[in-house]
Amino acid sequence: MAHKVTKIGVLTSGGDSPGMNAAIRAVVRTGLFHGLEVFGIMRGYQGMVEDDIIKMESRSVANIIQRGGTILKTARSKEFFEHEGRKKAYANLQKRGIDGLVIIGGDGSFRGAQKFSAEFDIPCVGLPGTIDKDMAGTDVTIGFDTAVNTAVQAIDKIRDTMDAHDRVFIVEVMGRDAGYIALHSGIATGAENILIPETKTDIEAIIHGLTEKEKRKKLVNLIVVAEGEEFGGGNEVAKVIRQRMPNADVRVTVLGHIQRGGAPTCEDRVVASHMGYYAVESLLLGRRNVMVGVINNKIHYTPLEKAVKEKHKIGTEWIKIQKILAS
Amino acid sequence: MAHKVTKIGVLTSGGDSPGMNAAIRAVVRTGLFHGLEVFGIMRGYQGMVEDDIIKMESRSVANIIQRGGTILKTARSKEFFEHEGRKKAYANLQKRGIDGLVIIGGDGSFRGAQKFSAEFDIPCVGLPGTIDKDMAGTDVTIGFDTAVNTAVQAIDKIRDTMDAHDRVFIVEVMGRDAGYIALHSGIATGAENILIPETKTDIEAIIHGLTEKEKRKKLVNLIVVAEGEEFGGGNEVAKVIRQRMPNADVRVTVLGHIQRGGAPTCEDRVVASHMGYYAVESLLLGRRNVMVGVINNKIHYTPLEKAVKEKHKIGTEWIKIQKILAS
Amino acid sequence: MAHKVTKIGVLTSGGDSPGMNAAIRAVVRTGLFHGLEVFGIMRGYQGMVEDDIIKMESRSVANIIQRGGTILKTARSKEFFEHEGRKKAYANLQKRGIDGLVIIGGDGSFRGAQKFSAEFDIPCVGLPGTIDKDMAGTDVTIGFDTAVNTAVQAIDKIRDTMDAHDRVFIVEVMGRDAGYIALHSGIATGAENILIPETKTDIEAIIHGLTEKEKRKKLVNLIVVAEGEEFGGGNEVAKVIRQRMPNADVRVTVLGHIQRGGAPTCEDRVVASHMGYYAVESLLLGRRNVMVGVINNKIHYTPLEKAVKEKHKIGTEWIKIQKILAS
Amino acid sequence: MAHKVTKIGVLTSGGDSPGMNAAIRAVVRTGLFHGLEVFGIMRGYQGMVEDDIIKMESRSVANIIQRGGTILKTARSKEFFEHEGRKKAYANLQKRGIDGLVIIGGDGSFRGAQKFSAEFDIPCVGLPGTIDKDMAGTDVTIGFDTAVNTAVQAIDKIRDTMDAHDRVFIVEVMGRDAGYIALHSGIATGAENILIPETKTDIEAIIHGLTEKEKRKKLVNLIVVAEGEEFGGGNEVAKVIRQRMPNADVRVTVLGHIQRGGAPTCEDRVVASHMGYYAVESLLLGRRNVMVGVINNKIHYTPLEKAVKEKHKIGTEWIKIQKILAS
Repeated sequence: MAHKVTKIGVLTSGGDSPGMNAAIRAVVRTGLFHGLEVFGIMRGYQGMVEDDIIKMESRSVANIIQRGGTILKTARSKEFFEHEGRKKAYANLQKRGIDGLVIIGGDGSFRGAQKFSAEFDIPCVGLPGTIDKDMAGTDVTIGFDTAVNTAVQAIDKIRDTMDAHDRVFIVEVMGRDAGYIALHSGIATGAENILIPETKTDIEAIIHGLTEKEKRKKLVNLIVVAEGEEFGGGNEVAKVIRQRMPNADVRVTVLGHIQRGGAPTCEDRVVASHMGYYAVESLLLGRRNVMVGVINNKIHYTPLEKAVKEKHKIGTEWIKIQKILAS
Repeated sequence: MAHKVTKIGVLTSGGDSPGMNAAIRAVVRTGLFHGLEVFGIMRGYQGMVEDDIIKMESRSVANIIQRGGTILKTARSKEFFEHEGRKKAYANLQKRGIDGLVIIGGDGSFRGAQKFSAEFDIPCVGLPGTIDKDMAGTDVTIGFDTAVNTAVQAIDKIRDTMDAHDRVFIVEVMGRDAGYIALHSGIATGAENILIPETKTDIEAIIHGLTEKEKRKKLVNLIVVAEGEEFGGGNEVAKVIRQRMPNADVRVTVLGHIQRGGAPTCEDRVVASHMGYYAVESLLLGRRNVMVGVINNKIHYTPLEKAVKEKHKIGTEWIKIQKILAS
Repeated sequence: MAHKVTKIGVLTSGGDSPGMNAAIRAVVRTGLFHGLEVFGIMRGYQGMVEDDIIKMESRSVANIIQRGGTILKTARSKEFFEHEGRKKAYANLQKRGIDGLVIIGGDGSFRGAQKFSAEFDIPCVGLPGTIDKDMAGTDVTIGFDTAVNTAVQAIDKIRDTMDAHDRVFIVEVMGRDAGYIALHSGIATGAENILIPETKTDIEAIIHGLTEKEKRKKLVNLIVVAEGEEFGGGNEVAKVIRQRMPNADVRVTVLGHIQRGGAPTCEDRVVASHMGYYAVESLLLGRRNVMVGVINNKIHYTPLEKAVKEKHKIGTEWIKIQKILAS
Repeated sequence: MAHKVTKIGVLTSGGDSPGMNAAIRAVVRTGLFHGLEVFGIMRGYQGMVEDDIIKMESRSVANIIQRGGTILKTARSKEFFEHEGRKKAYANLQKRGIDGLVIIGGDGSFRGAQKFSAEFDIPCVGLPGTIDKDMAGTDVTIGFDTAVNTAVQAIDKIRDTMDAHDRVFIVEVMGRDAGYIALHSGIATGAENILIPETKTDIEAIIHGLTEKEKRKKLVNLIVVAEGEEFGGGNEVAKVIRQRMPNADVRVTVLGHIQRGGAPTCEDRVVASHMGYYAVESLLLGRRNVMVGVINNKIHYTPLEKAVKEKHKIGTEWIKIQKILAS
C-alpha cells in the first residue's frame, strides 16, 4: 500500500554526470510545489550514513541548472554496503520523517536503493544519471549528450593538428562497458575507425587500411577508442600499431575526466528536468522502486531490479555506415 | 517502375541549418560507395536553373562535417516557381544524365521537389533541414539541436548579467510558426515565462507575476519568446510590459541569425549522416518522393506531400512543468 | 598620512563585466591573507546606502573565478549622488569599522569614489571593470577580452549563414563611446567594414564597395558596427544601405547583452586576479584614490581623477590593415 | 643592399599553433595588395625540398581566419638539415623567382631560415608561431592565447567533477621548457599548486598541504603541471603523491593535443593578422632575417639569431600571488 509521502530526500550517487544539478533542481521544486519537505543528502549514501543531510528550499537550487557536477556531491559508500551502515542511514531518515527517496545515479546506486527499500520499506525512485548511456529501461541518460559533445569538440581540435601534420591519432573516450560515446563522437568527427567493447576489434583490417594510406603517403587517420575496447584502450592500440608500422607517427590522447564536467547541453537539462519532475510525481502516486526513463520520447517506468547496465545492441549497421562515410 | 539511378544530384534549399554539410557529405560518399556519380547543385533550385552544378568527389566533402552553413550554398529561386524555370532546370540535369535528386531543406523545398518530380518524372528524396523542428513525419530535423544549444548558451550569458542587475530580460529566439526552440531553451535556462505561437500568451498572468516580484523588490525575470508569438516577438512584449510597469528595467535581446550557424552538435551530425545515407539507399531501392525522417529512433519514410510543416502538439504539460520548476 | 587599514569593503558598480568575480575573489583572499576583515557591499553604492553589506570569508568566493556576472551584484544608485545618501553610506561603513574600499567599475563609479573619499576621508582604490576598454591609465580592462571573444564567436556563426546565402550582414556590437570591441572582433572575423565612433564613417565608400560586388553577383559582405557609430548603430546603417541598394539582401543582428556575460577568458581572470591582489596591497601601503591598471604588462597606478574614459587613439593604421586583409 | 622582392613564399614549420591560418591569410593578402606574387609552400621546409609549392590567390585564404591548424600543413624536414636538401629547396624557389620568404614557426624553424638565408642570400622574415610563448623578442606568440584558453575550459570541466567527488586532480598541460600555459591556466582556474619547469618543485610543501586537507577530510585539490616540470609531468607527480598518501584519491588528466587545435581566440587572430602584415612590409622595406614580434604592444623586430627560445623570467611573485588566492 502506498503511504502518502510527505518528506523526501534526494541524492546523487556513483560517478557524477552533467545534468545532475538540473535533476536535483526539478526534484526539489516539484516537491515543494506539492507541499512536501525536501532534503538534500550529501555525498550519496555516505551522507545518509553520516547524517550529512540538509533542508532544501527553492533558493537552494537557484542558478544551478547550467552547472556541471552535483551540488549534493557524490561518493561511493562502503558502509552502506553493510546492513549496519544502512540501519544507521535509515535512522537518520527516520528522525527527520523522510519517507521517500530519489536516487540519481547508475545501476550500482539502484542496487543499493533496492536493498535499502526492501529492508526498511521506504519507497525509492531512481533517475539514470550516467554518461555511458548503457541502461535498460531508457533511451537516454542524464549526462550522455553533454559528454559526447565534449568529446566531439575535443576531437575537432585534435583533427586540426592531425591534419596539419598528417598523423595517426588515437583518441580514447570514456566507456568501460559501452561504446556509445565512442560511436557517436566517432561518427560525428568522421573517424576512420571506431573501436568499442560491443564488437570485436579487427586490428588486421585497421593495419591494412593504415598501410595502404602509408603507401600513398597520406597517412592521416583518426581512431576513436572506447576505454573498454578489447585491447584495453588507446595506449594499447597505439602499441600494436607502432609495433606493426614502425615508421608511422602515432599519437594518443586520453580525454579523461573532461567528459564528466561542463555546462550540460540543452537536451541533458531538459531530460533531467522532466525526469526529476516525474520522480516526485511517481512518489506521490505511490510508485516505488522504479527508475524513471524515456523510451520513444515518452516517460517510462522500469522496476529498479530491471534497470541494469545493458548493452543496447549497437547496430553493426552503424559501424558499416561509418566506414562508408569516412572513406 | 523504379528505373535504376546512376547519377544523382544533391542540393540545399531554403534557410540553412547546421548539419547540412554533414548530410551533403553522407549523400556524396554513400553515392560514390555505390558507384554512382554525384553532383552538387549550387544555391538550391536556382543553381539547377542556372546550370551551376559541380561534380563531387570524396575529397569535395572532406573536413566539412564539423562546419556550419552549407558548402553548396542555398537560395530562394523565383524562376523555379515557374514551369519555364523548371524546364531549364531539368534540361541541365538531363545533359549530365542526373536521374535522382536529394533535397535538403524544409517543406517549401519539398513542395518544389514534388512539382518538379511530377512534371519530369525524376525521383526526389527529401531530408528535413530546418532549425525549427516543425515537420510532420519526423521527430528530429537537421539543425534543431545545434540551434537550441546556441540559444541556451547565449541565454546563459544573459542570465549572468541579468542576475547582476536584477532586471527583466526578454530573449527572442527563432521560430516563426513553432515554439520548439523557445520551449526547450526556456526550460533549459530556467526561464520564468516561455511565449510560443502554439499557445495563447496570458499577458495578464505575466504582468501579475512581475508585479508581485516588483513588490518584493526582487524583479529578476527571464522571458523567452519565439519570434512568431502572438504579440509579435520580444520587442512587442517589452512594449506591453513597459506600458504596464513603467518602473521596471526591461531589456530585450533578439538572438537572430547566430542560431543558424556554428559547428553542429554531435546529434545533428549523427542524424544528418544517417539521413544522408538512407537518402541514397532509398533512391537505389526505387523509393521516390519521400522524406527520410526519424520516428522513435527509427528511420521512417513519409511521402513528400505529407512532409509539411506541422505543429507537433507541444504538450501543455511541458509548460506546466516549466512553471513549477522556475518558481 | 596613511592610517593603517584593518577592515575593507569591496563592491562592483555600473555595468557588469566578466571577470568581476575573479577580482572580488582576489580582493577577499588577499585581504584575509593580510589579516584584514573583508566585507562585500551588495549592489554597488546602493548597498552601501541601504546597509546591504555582508562579511566575506575565503569560502564566500570559492568556485566563482570562472563565473560571469558579479556575486555582489551591481546597480546604479541615485541616492549616492546626493550628499545625504553618501552620509548614510558612510555611517554604514563606520559602524563596521570599514576603513578602506575597493571599487570595481568604470569611470562613473570612480567619480563617485572620489567624491566620497573627499568628503569622508576614506581611502578608495579602483579597478577598471568595463568591457569597453576605454580607460585612461591602463591598457587592459576587466571584461574586454571576454566580451570581444563572445562577439567573435557569435560573428563566426553568422558568417556561416551569411556565406550560405550570399548576404550583406551588419552586426552591431557594444561600444557606445569606444570602438575596441568592433575593431578587434571585426579584424578577427575578417569583416569587410568596421564602423566605430572614433572615425568618420565613409558611407559612400561602403556603398561603392557593395555596389561593385552586386555587379559581380558576389554580394557577400560583413559589416561590424559599434553601437556608438555616427549613424546610430546597425539598424540605422542598414536603413541607409537598403535605401541606396533596394535589391540587396541586408540583415542586421544586434549582439546585445550576451557580450556582458559568460565565463571569463583566461586573460580576464588573470588580469582581474592580479589587479585585485594589488588593490589590497595598495591600501595596505597607504595608496589612496588610485586606479590599479596595467601598462606595458606592468602594474600602474593612476589617480582616480585621471582614470577617466579615454578614447585611446585607435590607429588609423589598424583600419588600413583591415581593409587590405579583408579584400 | 635590399633587392626589391617581387615574389614571396610563405610556410608554416614545426609544431602547429592556432592562428597560423590567420597569419598566412595576412601574408598572402598583404603581398597581393602590394602587387607581389605569393606562393604557399606546403609542409614547411619539406615542401620546399620536394617542390610542393602552390600559387596563392586572395580566395585561397578566404574563410580560414577562424580555423585551427594550418592550410599549408607543417612537418619536420630531415633533408633540409643537409646542405644538399637546402640546395634542392633553393632551386625550387629560384625556378619560380621567389625572392623572399615568410616562415611561421618556432626557434628551430628560425635556425633553418638563418642557415638557408646565409647560404643562398634570400631574405627571410620569421613570425613566432608557438603555443609555448617562450620566445625572445616578443611578448606574445601566435597560438598561446588559444592554447591557454583551451586548457582553462578543460580544467573548468574537470573542476566540476573534482568538486563532486572531493578528489585530488592533477592536470598536465603542454610546455616542455616553459611554464606559461601551466601558470596562466592554473591562476585562471584557481589551482592550489602550479608546477613549472622554471622553478623547483617543492614536493614536500605540496604533500604537507594535501595531508593537512586530508586530516580535515577536505581533500579537494587541483594541481596544474607543465609537461616539462622536473618530476616529468602529471603521471610522475601522481606516483609520488600516491606513494606518500596511499589513501588519497588522485586522478590525472593529460590534456595533450587538444591544446594545439581549435578556432583561435580574438587575440591570436588579431596578433597573427598584424604580424603577417608587417612581415610583408618588412620584406618590402628590405629588412631581412628578423622575427616580427610585439613588445609592449608595439611591433618589434629581432634578428633571427636572437629570436631563440627564452625562459622569460616567470615572476616568483606570480607564484606567490597564486598561493594566496587559492587558499
